Amino acid sequence: MTHDHPTPVTVLGLGPMGQALAGAFLAQGHPTTVWNRTAARAGDLVARGATRADTVADAVAASPLTIACVIDYDAVRAIVAPAADALKGRTLVNLTADTPERARLMAEWAAERGIDYLDGAIMTPTPTIGGPAAVVLYSGPEEIHHAHRRALASLGGTSAYLGADPGRAAAHDVALLDLFWTSMSGLVHAFALAAAEDIAARDLAPLAKGIGALLPAIIDEFAEHFDGGDHPGDQSTILSAAAGMEHIIHAAQARGIDTGVLSAAQAVARRAIDAGQGGDSFSRLAEVLGRPVPAP
Amino acid sequence: MTHDHPTPVTVLGLGPMGQALAGAFLAQGHPTTVWNRTAARAGDLVARGATRADTVADAVAASPLTIACVIDYDAVRAIVAPAADALKGRTLVNLTADTPERARLMAEWAAERGIDYLDGAIMTPTPTIGGPAAVVLYSGPEEIHHAHRRALASLGGTSAYLGADPGRAAAHDVALLDLFWTSMSGLVHAFALAAAEDIAARDLAPLAKGIGALLPAIIDEFAEHFDGGDHPGDQSTILSAAAGMEHIIHAAQARGIDTGVLSAAQAVARRAIDAGQGGDSFSRLAEVLGRPVPAP
Repeated sequence: MTHDHPTPVTVLGLGPMGQALAGAFLAQGHPTTVWNRTAARAGDLVARGATRADTVADAVAASPLTIACVIDYDAVRAIVAPAADALKGRTLVNLTADTPERARLMAEWAAERGIDYLDGAIMTPTPTIGGPAAVVLYSGPEEIHHAHRRALASLGGTSAYLGADPGRAAAHDVALLDLFWTSMSGLVHAFALAAAEDIAARDLAPLAKGIGALLPAIIDEFAEHFDGGDHPGDQSTILSAAAGMEHIIHAAQARGIDTGVLSAAQAVARRAIDAGQGGDSFSRLAEVLGRPVPAP
Repeated sequence: MTHDHPTPVTVLGLGPMGQALAGAFLAQGHPTTVWNRTAARAGDLVARGATRADTVADAVAASPLTIACVIDYDAVRAIVAPAADALKGRTLVNLTADTPERARLMAEWAAERGIDYLDGAIMTPTPTIGGPAAVVLYSGPEEIHHAHRRALASLGGTSAYLGADPGRAAAHDVALLDLFWTSMSGLVHAFALAAAEDIAARDLAPLAKGIGALLPAIIDEFAEHFDGGDHPGDQSTILSAAAGMEHIIHAAQARGIDTGVLSAAQAVARRAIDAGQGGDSFSRLAEVLGRPVPAP
């Protein structure tokens, strides 16, 4: 997406993701100012037309829109606090990943200083940025998102506005990263277990993708169960899942492989079974996870 | 796939999967004999042309090929042991899910009794059986698989022969179910966390599918790292994963949601960080999982 007068944009933080963000703005013709604690990181972007600022205050003063993408919100605060006066009346879009609570606190901090604030979450890896596969979520005041929607569209793909609560993008982010990192933990464990049985990871990979291909239908089915509060076990039950997990735990123990993750997953299934819900769909566990753990 | 003289087939066990297997053989014209501890389960299959046997010995005597699909290998043994004489010189294909060790013991048991034995694992849900999406894995003597490959192809989709070791199908099965159940645990946890933030599961579902869509590329990348023994952290590191998991754990704790699975996953990441591997790719954890846990 290009347009006649691309807005100047400032990017604070030039880790791999910050560099990808700045590169996407440059590619769409935005005058782009960059700042990083380690100035050397700006080299490649400057070669592509970016302007390097010496201070955060100089950087944010160069554009009506500043994007921050650093390690966590403490780092954002530490970086922008000394430049709060320069940011006043301008927009800060924080694409750093953190919790919904911290996003709300950051929004309060910005509001107290007259800074327009949007919180965001980047859901796809660095190489997707600027291309069709990118997914970036935003939340905060709708008028601020609306004012900058064209510049933000330069990041590519899906640019979704989720609502006025500044914690909403981060809430989606943590839930989705929860699924992501738990699945990744399952993937490395599957490779470990396969290796112990002399199965090369490259031989397991096509079948592992087949498992991934089952997810979309299950995601829809579980979502329907969970939103409806009804978890029919007609396809498969918590009892059969617990039995399956038991086989895997035995196989892993026999090979000296850590079983912490699966044992914890199985403990949740057992809580449901102990509560008489073993015949329900596995989706019931989303509800069990939020229940207080009974005293032993 | 149809052929001129479909082999008679016997199916032992008529749970949902056993019924699907028998139905697939019937659909491809195989004379199909069925047996189940509870005879009533055979009703629908008999209406479609199956023959119900009163005893396991009668059932296995009716066909050169018998398929068993019950709850676990103890149940298979209990069912077929009294009919071992009738099975002698015939083929038993065990599609029950269990561990590689138990598959090997079952193969020994069969060999001692002159029973041709193949072990198998069904990787896809009941509704796929007989259709293009089915995936069934087999291991055991190649000539036995070869002799029955046409009948087994009636189960549909991908019918993969993995090698002579009878535990090989079960080894793939446990590794893939490991990925599956761990991912499912992540999915229900993501729904729980989203619900605590007033995000409906149906609103999270499309984004959750987007996370699933990232898996194939990561599976290939991690497989390459793991087989090569080299885990470059150029895309993302164990340190950043651990920080991400920390955010999720905080967000879950703040909402009173169980954090057992993620805490166990994070503990594995910490072991790598403590060993000085925090800058490596997350794929390194497949190796860490098989290392003895250091004394505290």
